[in-house]
Amino acid sequence: MFDSLFLADFPGINDVYQGSNEASLREAIAVPINDPSMAVAAMASVTRHLGFAITGSTTYEQPYSFARRMTTLDHLTGGRVGWNIVTSATASAARNLGLEQQVAHDERYAIADEFMEVVYKLWEGSWEDDAVVRDAERGVYTDPTKVHPAAHKGTYFSVPDPFLCEPSRQRTPALFQAGASSAGREFAAKHAEAVFLVDTSVNSLRRSVDATTELARTLGRSRSDLSFIAGVSVVVAPTDSEARAKFEQQLPFISVEGTLARQSSLMQLDFGEIDIDAPLEYVETDGIRSFLERFTIADPDRTWTPRQVAEQMARSLGAITVVGSPTTVADRLEELADEAGLDGFNVYDNLPLRTLPDFVDLVVPELQRRGRVPTAYEADTLRGNVTGRGARLGDGHVGASFRATQRLGLEENARS
Amino acid sequence: MFDSLFLADFPGINDVYQGSNEASLREAIAVPINDPSMAVAAMASVTRHLGFAITGSTTYEQPYSFARRMTTLDHLTGGRVGWNIVTSATASAARNLGLEQQVAHDERYAIADEFMEVVYKLWEGSWEDDAVVRDAERGVYTDPTKVHPAAHKGTYFSVPDPFLCEPSRQRTPALFQAGASSAGREFAAKHAEAVFLVDTSVNSLRRSVDATTELARTLGRSRSDLSFIAGVSVVVAPTDSEARAKFEQQLPFISVEGTLARQSSLMQLDFGEIDIDAPLEYVETDGIRSFLERFTIADPDRTWTPRQVAEQMARSLGAITVVGSPTTVADRLEELADEAGLDGFNVYDNLPLRTLPDFVDLVVPELQRRGRVPTAYEADTLRGNVTGRGARLGDGHVGASFRATQRLGLEENARS
Repeated sequence: MFDSLFLADFPGINDVYQGSNEASLREAIAVPINDPSMAVAAMASVTRHLGFAITGSTTYEQPYSFARRMTTLDHLTGGRVGWNIVTSATASAARNLGLEQQVAHDERYAIADEFMEVVYKLWEGSWEDDAVVRDAERGVYTDPTKVHPAAHKGTYFSVPDPFLCEPSRQRTPALFQAGASSAGREFAAKHAEAVFLVDTSVNSLRRSVDATTELARTLGRSRSDLSFIAGVSVVVAPTDSEARAKFEQQLPFISVEGTLARQSSLMQLDFGEIDIDAPLEYVETDGIRSFLERFTIADPDRTWTPRQVAEQMARSLGAITVVGSPTTVADRLEELADEAGLDGFNVYDNLPLRTLPDFVDLVVPELQRRGRVPTAYEADTLRGNVTGRGARLGDGHVGASFRATQRLGLEENARS
Repeated sequence: MFDSLFLADFPGINDVYQGSNEASLREAIAVPINDPSMAVAAMASVTRHLGFAITGSTTYEQPYSFARRMTTLDHLTGGRVGWNIVTSATASAARNLGLEQQVAHDERYAIADEFMEVVYKLWEGSWEDDAVVRDAERGVYTDPTKVHPAAHKGTYFSVPDPFLCEPSRQRTPALFQAGASSAGREFAAKHAEAVFLVDTSVNSLRRSVDATTELARTLGRSRSDLSFIAGVSVVVAPTDSEARAKFEQQLPFISVEGTLARQSSLMQLDFGEIDIDAPLEYVETDGIRSFLERFTIADPDRTWTPRQVAEQMARSLGAITVVGSPTTVADRLEELADEAGLDGFNVYDNLPLRTLPDFVDLVVPELQRRGRVPTAYEADTLRGNVTGRGARLGDGHVGASFRATQRLGLEENARS
């Protein structure tokens, strides 16, 4: 009953930690990494309802070709594709993909906003619903009068022509976003249908939900227009003590260095420059210290070293960790959902082919008994299952304003 | 026993004919068109030997991300991916993908040549064969000393970092090329392992084979380093008269306008400007007249009009057409192969789900009886089946000179 499989992506190599890619290569921290979109067609052919959310960067893609790739996948999956919109912070990606240097953070969001305008024009605005007629008798596939040019000429992109694809089931893929910065949150409030949250406490999650919801309201959207989904690390076994023992068995897999290498790249700050065995207060880089402090909430009065924080982070992949029997886990997830106002969880696949099967076998039935997880899919598109609504973008969504009918309507209004 | 399914691609819309995209949209001339690479993983999961050759443009892609997509597919197919290298001539693609205008023809080949250098560095040079150690005991996935930066800084591309992917079965996908211009032929002579030819006469095919082979020899390659594959249109039925009747039945599907729209975009010359019912000699645009004259060889003494030539072209998709019983077709294909010096054919799928099954049921068994088509696959990679050699690029191929071992060897030589 998972709505979606989420596939992360990092189009560059993590090489900020100690100014080198050595730690990333040695411990396989997001390298090697294949293109996540390529496997979706194969997975779609052996599944019926599962959606696939793929990370795609608005900083390194051309909207014209990116939109075609997503539409192709939406056709191949019958409407089960989602897009995790990222603006990417990896300097390595920038320098290998034709950019002289990494684009500044806030400009990345300006580019992202224009990128969205282009893809909405392609996905929603270009081909009318009845453009494709498939009239073999007359030899007509498409009615050209119902296919409109994107006619986009902006600051960052120029896309004059119509979209290359016939519209797919969802047209615009289900839109996911995870930005936690101020600009990221504004972007999510405007564009996202589902927001990924990663944090260490229920209070922080609640604050994120409230802040993004409030921003969305100022843009005319309501709480029910967004789904909030929090990352969670789950270790489950038939009993609490067995679950704790299982968690202990997983600890040797934790790598402090790997965690620091990964975090260095995500934040583009070198965690290799700090003394990881001195108390946290001695960390001089503000961004690093304040980040590490977030993970001390389990015991804020104790003196932590960066190494101890990193161990804590590694255990949870930076998110809330729940360890226990099916009822313990279900209790905690219900509590988290209710207290933070969440719509769902992104369950981390800590041990591939072990963590998720455990969750499916033990936790899902318990949540179904409690009426928290449905026993049948509500819809056969990803958007339908995530939003509980139709296959297409809601009429109030910013992307819907680019629909051909609406644009033509506006033109007629302007004429009259 | 097909080696490969060839998937063409046109990343822009055909809008040269009559200065409009109307004819292309109406008759579905390469629009709508989905991204061909996305379906390969799904097809790979239900096939064991069939290869997949995908068109990819060196003008509109970034080599760093393109190389990753191809390697991902080579992993997912177990070494059955080929790349039809094109430089693309579509103005529409250029203007929608961030280029101010279409890049001039010969500069496109200069870009293509540097693009190849970059992807060879990534595919062949970056990860040594024993870089990945997967040592769970020591927590080491990759030995970082065996992963080398591409360190490419050229005129068109800058790719300083190592490749993001672990090497796949073939490393470099099997390399196909179809350029017929002088620059295209030079490019093929240097890089291609298989050359697609499209022409209307055995003599023209022979001249292309000879010219490219001769060019390849000047670069130190031999005839056996290249496979020549000609496009062919086949209509087959149990008897010659049934095949001719079948061909006649297909003629109503022919569209003169669609053919002219397609050819206008391929050549970036507007065939809509000529009078298609006046004799060919009145066509003023040299490029268009000389192109059309190639299709009059069936009856060069007759007076042809552009419309009649277009009908001729549409019947054959611009290639040699063979109509007849299995023995007639096999005779003609053997004759073509021997007289033009071909290694294989690219059989056009004129009527999807009908043309190829006919060919498989009727022609393949006849060619197998004659020992012209094998009865079992020689290899389980595309390169193995196309070249009759190993899964990896041959040592004499230009791409092999970028291998880490060879580059390190050269460095040691330089030092000594």
